[in-house]
Amino acid sequence: DYVPERIRKLESRVKDNEFDVDAWNGLIREAQTHPIEKARKTFERLVTQFPTTGRYWRIYIEQEMKSRNYEKVEKLFQRCLMRVLSIDLWKCYLSYVRETKSGLSSYREKMAQAYDFALEKIGMDIMSYQIWADYVAFLKGVEAVGSYAENQRITAVRRVYQRGCVNPMINIEQLWREYSQYEQGINAIIAKKMLDDRTRDYVNARRVSKELEAMTRSLQRHNPATPPCGSAEEAKQVSLWKKYIEWEKNNPLRSESLTVISKRVMFAYEQCLLCLGHHPVWYEAAQYLSSTSKLMQEKGDTNSSKILSDEASSLYERAISSLMKSNMLIHFAYADFEEGRMKHDKVHTIYQRMLDIKDCDQTLTFIQYMKFTRRAEGIKAARLVFKKAREDTRIRFHVFVAAALMEYYCTKEKQIAFKIFELGLKRFGHEPDYLLSYIDYMAHLNEDNNTRVLFERILTSTSLSSDKSGTIWDKYLEFECNVGDLSSLLKVESRRQDAFKSEYEGKSTCLLIDRYRFLDLYPCPTDILRALGYKESRSSNKPTISM
Amino acid sequence: DYVPERIRKLESRVKDNEFDVDAWNGLIREAQTHPIEKARKTFERLVTQFPTTGRYWRIYIEQEMKSRNYEKVEKLFQRCLMRVLSIDLWKCYLSYVRETKSGLSSYREKMAQAYDFALEKIGMDIMSYQIWADYVAFLKGVEAVGSYAENQRITAVRRVYQRGCVNPMINIEQLWREYSQYEQGINAIIAKKMLDDRTRDYVNARRVSKELEAMTRSLQRHNPATPPCGSAEEAKQVSLWKKYIEWEKNNPLRSESLTVISKRVMFAYEQCLLCLGHHPVWYEAAQYLSSTSKLMQEKGDTNSSKILSDEASSLYERAISSLMKSNMLIHFAYADFEEGRMKHDKVHTIYQRMLDIKDCDQTLTFIQYMKFTRRAEGIKAARLVFKKAREDTRIRFHVFVAAALMEYYCTKEKQIAFKIFELGLKRFGHEPDYLLSYIDYMAHLNEDNNTRVLFERILTSTSLSSDKSGTIWDKYLEFECNVGDLSSLLKVESRRQDAFKSEYEGKSTCLLIDRYRFLDLYPCPTDILRALGYKESRSSNKPTISM
Repeated sequence: DYVPERIRKLESRVKDNEFDVDAWNGLIREAQTHPIEKARKTFERLVTQFPTTGRYWRIYIEQEMKSRNYEKVEKLFQRCLMRVLSIDLWKCYLSYVRETKSGLSSYREKMAQAYDFALEKIGMDIMSYQIWADYVAFLKGVEAVGSYAENQRITAVRRVYQRGCVNPMINIEQLWREYSQYEQGINAIIAKKMLDDRTRDYVNARRVSKELEAMTRSLQRHNPATPPCGSAEEAKQVSLWKKYIEWEKNNPLRSESLTVISKRVMFAYEQCLLCLGHHPVWYEAAQYLSSTSKLMQEKGDTNSSKILSDEASSLYERAISSLMKSNMLIHFAYADFEEGRMKHDKVHTIYQRMLDIKDCDQTLTFIQYMKFTRRAEGIKAARLVFKKAREDTRIRFHVFVAAALMEYYCTKEKQIAFKIFELGLKRFGHEPDYLLSYIDYMAHLNEDNNTRVLFERILTSTSLSSDKSGTIWDKYLEFECNVGDLSSLLKVESRRQDAFKSEYEGKSTCLLIDRYRFLDLYPCPTDILRALGYKESRSSNKPTISM
Repeated sequence: DYVPERIRKLESRVKDNEFDVDAWNGLIREAQTHPIEKARKTFERLVTQFPTTGRYWRIYIEQEMKSRNYEKVEKLFQRCLMRVLSIDLWKCYLSYVRETKSGLSSYREKMAQAYDFALEKIGMDIMSYQIWADYVAFLKGVEAVGSYAENQRITAVRRVYQRGCVNPMINIEQLWREYSQYEQGINAIIAKKMLDDRTRDYVNARRVSKELEAMTRSLQRHNPATPPCGSAEEAKQVSLWKKYIEWEKNNPLRSESLTVISKRVMFAYEQCLLCLGHHPVWYEAAQYLSSTSKLMQEKGDTNSSKILSDEASSLYERAISSLMKSNMLIHFAYADFEEGRMKHDKVHTIYQRMLDIKDCDQTLTFIQYMKFTRRAEGIKAARLVFKKAREDTRIRFHVFVAAALMEYYCTKEKQIAFKIFELGLKRFGHEPDYLLSYIDYMAHLNEDNNTRVLFERILTSTSLSSDKSGTIWDKYLEFECNVGDLSSLLKVESRRQDAFKSEYEGKSTCLLIDRYRFLDLYPCPTDILRALGYKESRSSNKPTISM
């Protein structure tokens, strides 16, 4: 196939950065000019890349609708509707039902169901007025023969009006006016009573509408979700979303129902996740559900508590099945959440799913997995996880450090800790940070000679390249400063200097400073340190107190 | 007295910054216009402030000479000449002797002595040609009656020529030419032999003269010594001085005598100290003497070794008696040097002199003093020093940490260490860093419950203000992450969050990161950490491996 230069360029940009929204938009514009059979591949790639962007789903669906591929349209709605609470997408859905089902005998039921479904899911949206108004119009237009049917219709219309008039959104005043006229058109005396009863709630909702409008005005709700890039614009949006969510948490409607409040808060979170699904907002949302669940429990509402807790679990599940597929933080948080609910099997599954991700540094995963098993099932289970970790080629030295310290601090098994450090030495003898951890451990056991032996073994070993031995020498000097006599101190100092001759050339005073400093105290004022060209010792840790 | 506005301004600048060289130069110009009786006070202040600046001494002395206050001049020379190896000052001294002693019957001896003295002290200076030439001229001018006396004179002149012609300096060629003519004037045959014998050394010295000229060309040798300011210009000078000294250490003359080499090196150091006396070059110079002394010892030259070692000691003494009066680093280095020579009494005196300095943070002094006594005299002596430290109001918490860890690591006395930490708690319970050290110690003892009790004691105590408790909470969380079960972990996490409610507002994910990180591993990529507004935990130490 001939592909124009312009498109090739766009494709190559997308290849370089799969989140290049501008390039994607170019591809979309192009795809829209082609028949759907040719464009479908592009649209599929699009909604795979941006599964939470309502606008992209809508464009895709509209193209299928143009070609009357209704079966495909239905399938597409099934894939996105429940997860993507985008008002545009839902309006598109309602139009679709209106247009394609009007010929059916069940049209009235189907349409009413669709409206109810939509209001349930997206009725809280600030832009939902048109759905409410359309629903009312639809109900008013339903043919009703006889006074019973007419009363039924009035009840149905009134129900929607009454729900809508206490629902914060733009144009709520319009809905209230229409409702007032509607009631007056039926019975002026009843109307007064009806409206008086509802005025307070309407006024309240109208006030909240204004606040909600202010809260959401600057949100770019249609931004496709992209991974954090650290831009100022992104930070601004993040903070605006947080502000909006906090506002909902503060219960602006002054509702007394925790269920109402949490529904609104979760709606805000869902909206936020459409744009910030690559950020760990998932955790905050789940955390909110979980703490609300606890509140419910405290109030004795076990049932609601259970529902919210399960919702939190589903939210985590959605996260790690979608955009957070390879995000450790969310996996760990999910695991801890299920651990808190005593669902240990599930925790194992979660860690296993994380470990199943290939080409991924699993060091921290194994460490957290070990900590979980130690807490939940005891040290033997934790040792089995450590065994698995050792067989894994993707781990770094930290796993050995964590396992050894776990033995030391939790089981108090010094000898096992020692064996683990020795085992790790064979594999990570070239890693200064590993060696420092081992040395630190030895020094804490407070056996000076063993510590010295270890220093010497490390510094004379062939596995540690000499250019990486700097931190070890620093530590050795620190050690001798604390426990050695002057001559052993001077000996280590001069061996250190020999090992780094060129680096210390003409800087012997800097060496001296290392001899005398203690914690954050230096034997010179900082201006002199600077003038001497003194650099903080190479060790990544600041001097630990313990040595 | 009437003081002009201009002078008042200069005085006020000097009051603000006693090392404002420009302002001082203004004051000097003014003082030079006054009779010495009036100006003397200013000059005294000047040489007190800049005791190593030859030019200032010279100006002062010249003013006294103008008024023929020879007694005062002699006293001034006594105060500066031996310490200030400034060529200008020494030339001034020689002029003084020449002018004031010419009437005396002992003039010839006195003058010759003065020249010998000057050449011994400053003859190595690159600008010393004139002194050599003047000395020769002086010797030639001495009346000599009879061939014996004439031969004596020839020998004396020849001796000076021969020393000068192998001495690297500017105009060495001139001296060589004069010497050649001189020898030829005496005896053409002997002259050839004499000159041939010396040509090689002269050529060598001429080569070194060129190198020396290049080495010292950019040195601002007349800069008054001021404390390090960290400027680029200063750094440049420091590096030039080091280069020059290194060059001398590399023995450019290719001399086989260690004594010659070390004399030249020390001359370079002395020159450097005139300008950089506020920098710790003192240590490097003493260190050089000390290591040369060791070399001499190894070669079996015990006598020279002893001399150099004593010179190192005097140099330290000079340092702490003058510009380094309150510099800890030099005091410590001096103490270690004397400890290395087994002069323990002297070490005590040095620490005592440092401690005698009022209004000075003596924390590190006491720590080093304790370490010395522990090494040299045992733990009981160290405990006495710690007792003295406790009675001193100028110490900070570090002394208690050092003392406690000394007991733990050196005497293995856990209980004493524990008591010291408890004692320190009464005085430094408000210092988070002290508390962290204590906690760290407890955690290493690996007694979980005692550690928990300590955490709770600290966090519920009134001495720690709550805004400073952040690092303690971080540590507590870290501790529970390692040894606690999930519920104790979550409990600490939520108590920490409550304690810093406003700080953590909307940042619950950041809290989560602290729960999962291990050493340098984080559960998120750094771009996400940034986007979350995650900041490294408040504790000044990076997470120590040990907890």
